[in-house]
Amino acid sequence: MTEALTIRLDDRDNVAVARVDILPGTEIGGGVKAAHHIPAGHKIALSAIADGAAVRKYDQIIGFAEGAIRPGDHVHTHNCVFAMFDRDYAVGQDVKPVDYVPEAERATFDGYRRANGRAATRNYIGILTSVNCSATVARYVAEQFRHPDMLAEYPNIDGVVALTHGTGCGMASTGEGMRMLSRTFAGYARHPNFAGLLFIGLGCEAAQLGMMMDVEGLKPGPLLHMFTIQDSGGTTATVRKGVELVKEMLPHANAFRREPIPASELILGLECGGSDAYSGISANPALGAAADLLVRHGGTACLGETPEIYGAEHLLTRRAVSPEVADKLIARIRWWEDYVAKNDGSMDNNPSPGNKEGGLTTILEKSLGAAAKGGTTNLADVYAYGERIASKGFVFMDTPGYDPVSVTGFVAGGANVVCFTTGRGSVFGCKPVPSIKLATNSAMYGRMSDDMDVNCGLVIDGEKSVAEMGEEIFRKILATASGEPTCSERLGFGDDEFLPWQIGAVM
Amino acid sequence: MTEALTIRLDDRDNVAVARVDILPGTEIGGGVKAAHHIPAGHKIALSAIADGAAVRKYDQIIGFAEGAIRPGDHVHTHNCVFAMFDRDYAVGQDVKPVDYVPEAERATFDGYRRANGRAATRNYIGILTSVNCSATVARYVAEQFRHPDMLAEYPNIDGVVALTHGTGCGMASTGEGMRMLSRTFAGYARHPNFAGLLFIGLGCEAAQLGMMMDVEGLKPGPLLHMFTIQDSGGTTATVRKGVELVKEMLPHANAFRREPIPASELILGLECGGSDAYSGISANPALGAAADLLVRHGGTACLGETPEIYGAEHLLTRRAVSPEVADKLIARIRWWEDYVAKNDGSMDNNPSPGNKEGGLTTILEKSLGAAAKGGTTNLADVYAYGERIASKGFVFMDTPGYDPVSVTGFVAGGANVVCFTTGRGSVFGCKPVPSIKLATNSAMYGRMSDDMDVNCGLVIDGEKSVAEMGEEIFRKILATASGEPTCSERLGFGDDEFLPWQIGAVM
Ligand SMILES: [Ca+2]
Ligand SMILES: [Ca+2]
Ligand SMILES: [Ca+2]
Ligand SMILES: [Ca+2]
Ligand SMILES: [Ca+2]
Repeated sequence: MTEALTIRLDDRDNVAVARVDILPGTEIGGGVKAAHHIPAGHKIALSAIADGAAVRKYDQIIGFAEGAIRPGDHVHTHNCVFAMFDRDYAVGQDVKPVDYVPEAERATFDGYRRANGRAATRNYIGILTSVNCSATVARYVAEQFRHPDMLAEYPNIDGVVALTHGTGCGMASTGEGMRMLSRTFAGYARHPNFAGLLFIGLGCEAAQLGMMMDVEGLKPGPLLHMFTIQDSGGTTATVRKGVELVKEMLPHANAFRREPIPASELILGLECGGSDAYSGISANPALGAAADLLVRHGGTACLGETPEIYGAEHLLTRRAVSPEVADKLIARIRWWEDYVAKNDGSMDNNPSPGNKEGGLTTILEKSLGAAAKGGTTNLADVYAYGERIASKGFVFMDTPGYDPVSVTGFVAGGANVVCFTTGRGSVFGCKPVPSIKLATNSAMYGRMSDDMDVNCGLVIDGEKSVAEMGEEIFRKILATASGEPTCSERLGFGDDEFLPWQIGAVM
Repeated sequence: MTEALTIRLDDRDNVAVARVDILPGTEIGGGVKAAHHIPAGHKIALSAIADGAAVRKYDQIIGFAEGAIRPGDHVHTHNCVFAMFDRDYAVGQDVKPVDYVPEAERATFDGYRRANGRAATRNYIGILTSVNCSATVARYVAEQFRHPDMLAEYPNIDGVVALTHGTGCGMASTGEGMRMLSRTFAGYARHPNFAGLLFIGLGCEAAQLGMMMDVEGLKPGPLLHMFTIQDSGGTTATVRKGVELVKEMLPHANAFRREPIPASELILGLECGGSDAYSGISANPALGAAADLLVRHGGTACLGETPEIYGAEHLLTRRAVSPEVADKLIARIRWWEDYVAKNDGSMDNNPSPGNKEGGLTTILEKSLGAAAKGGTTNLADVYAYGERIASKGFVFMDTPGYDPVSVTGFVAGGANVVCFTTGRGSVFGCKPVPSIKLATNSAMYGRMSDDMDVNCGLVIDGEKSVAEMGEEIFRKILATASGEPTCSERLGFGDDEFLPWQIGAVM
């Protein structure tokens, strides 16, 4: 009887998704009656689709009708098939002018302006390590500033955080793995959310700090110190040295004040983790709507998780602003095929039996659900893992789907806010950057309310449209960037979630 | 003039190593005079070696004379060459009866006897994670017990430790990588140094706790609990649950008392890290002497770091007690060649220019320096990474050279004490097992005295023989196993050094 039984993700779609189990004969609006039982999360035809015609969801082709489909029919693997049109990259075919918000109406947030002009959303002092061997020492330095008394005189500082990791030695000291690691370190070292930084090594590791600083063009100074345990005389002396250096940086870091900064200086990382059947119809498209808004306000939104858009890369090449940008994406796809093959794995993510049960018919539909986070605007550029994100608009970074590794890449690239959609329930945080958690369904939101910032399950419940949800997320992004703590920040997450992508043999 | 200028590593050696720079004409003892300048760490001939005859160090062939070598000659790449005899695995050729210490004279240590009969050297409660996503929650549970008041009533408990890691998802859910991870988790879950254990997951990760427990034959019970954040209702509820479960385990854990246990129940992990030119002539052979003593007392010593014995594997096959044991070792060597090749790396560790400057002439000599930690007794068995070490005597486990990953394998295999030799200076610890750090030289020992347990530099300084040093290390092992804290335990290391070997693509 009511529209609330289904969700049509775009006005041009010829299928809608059932929010709940729909019984045969039920009218779903517009005079369409369910011809069969349509399970929750599955698709129903809104109009007649001729044999061989395109089935559209997310305003995208997800497959082609096999036999005539009537209004009200269940649309799934029995009458909708994948065809090879996907091999046509059709570069730039879907590029359209960005509908920018007039300058005078553009949003701002209250952030920190750093000396080099970059905009920060948080104000931390960071302690990084070159190798696992210096992790404990780095943590000990940070722990000296955990007690509230230690930072009582410095109310503008969000904290002193040690971001440690398990690699940096037992690996080739040259080559792709080391370049990626070095780029990731440098991206964090330069991140505007750090007012000051220590870089602590052991001394004999493969990831030599001096070499990394040289290669990445980082210069030591009063707010960037680099030293090793072996040079400093062991654990106790190194911790003492680190604590003294942090103390010297505190007054400087505390001197920063929030000021209005255009939303165009936000770089939003788009992540999903612990996805479920609702991810692609509630939180992901809602986040896509928010990403579109941010782009219309002149900002940047970065999609990633290459294995999760695999098979639908041609839908991004169609949005690519130039053949060079499309080629960069295609090159990363080819790299992944090689990477996974030589590790005896497979990129073959054709919908699994579980996916199909949930209503996903083709690999396109599956990847579209993940890519929905990226909205609908033009693909402005493609970045390597951890590479500095320099362009405005919608961009792509080559990251794995694994949440902490993917987000570490975004943050290394300069993301200053992250949105994370989750269906099963993730508890992710990523200091020094706030991570806003978007629940795909109300049941999980209720069960894990401490951990969830926004309930996109309202889209499934029929209480909000995707566009309304997108606006709410956009407002949440601005508030968060202005200092409102996210759930994961209130809970203290982010010290254990720095996880650089590690490729190559551990030796 | 004096013997103290050189070190002869075995009575049957025909070369000795210069402890210091030796000037031409200097008498080094036994009527031998240096014919040339012999740099510190380089070799000098103790007797005539005919053209083509074997050059012996560590009672092993390290190469063959090219041209006649006279007593006092500098022996290096100009007159000592590597020949292909190494391809002869000569399985079992060097096997000899173990010179066991009579039962009545065998050493004991004061350890904990667990209900299943296994011997512990420490008494921890552990919190493990299946995936990085539960790392913060695990740490929060452990941190509730950091304040001394929390364990005041439980003086026999060494602590509550959270061992977290960066993997467990974004990986193939079946195959070699997952098997290795599952085996490592299970090895820790069963480790006798844990009186009780929590295993915390997120819920939707690839490394499913239930499946791992099934595959590894672990049964939940009052001292082994397993739960997920998603099932428990988020961060706050999961931390509360974890804290309650630890509290329930405390009285049980505290009830254990140290009692005399035969040294034959010690399983010693042998590791080197941050090696220098002295490693192969002081700390490594001294540790080898201690390993031999432990084996003579009926115990187990486990060598690893496959990439560092590469090229000298035939010296271990000669000590193998059976063709099956030799074949296991050779299979691991072949696996490594494939692993490194498909990751675009190389196993080729022929002495580097830096190694040669330090006096290492052939790949055999280099690998022998690392293998010297394993002493001279028969190779009783070979284990996969993290596999339960079940045999007595000298054994080998296939681990990478990277210290935290290698030692994690030993501990998963059941090692209850670790000795770690270091030249450049490592600050490694590995809860729940004590790690004894052995300095290869006195200068570093002096600089990093807080971190070093034993100064094997005394061998270089001419103050102790390798055999004497080995006896000192053996006594240190017994004292440590009996509860004497190591330097890294006093400093609190070990929470950040659990690092399971991760192979395969991060997806
Ligand atoms: Ca995802
Ligand atoms: Ca993800
Ligand atoms: Ca080593
Ligand atoms: Ca090592
Ligand atoms: Ca950690």
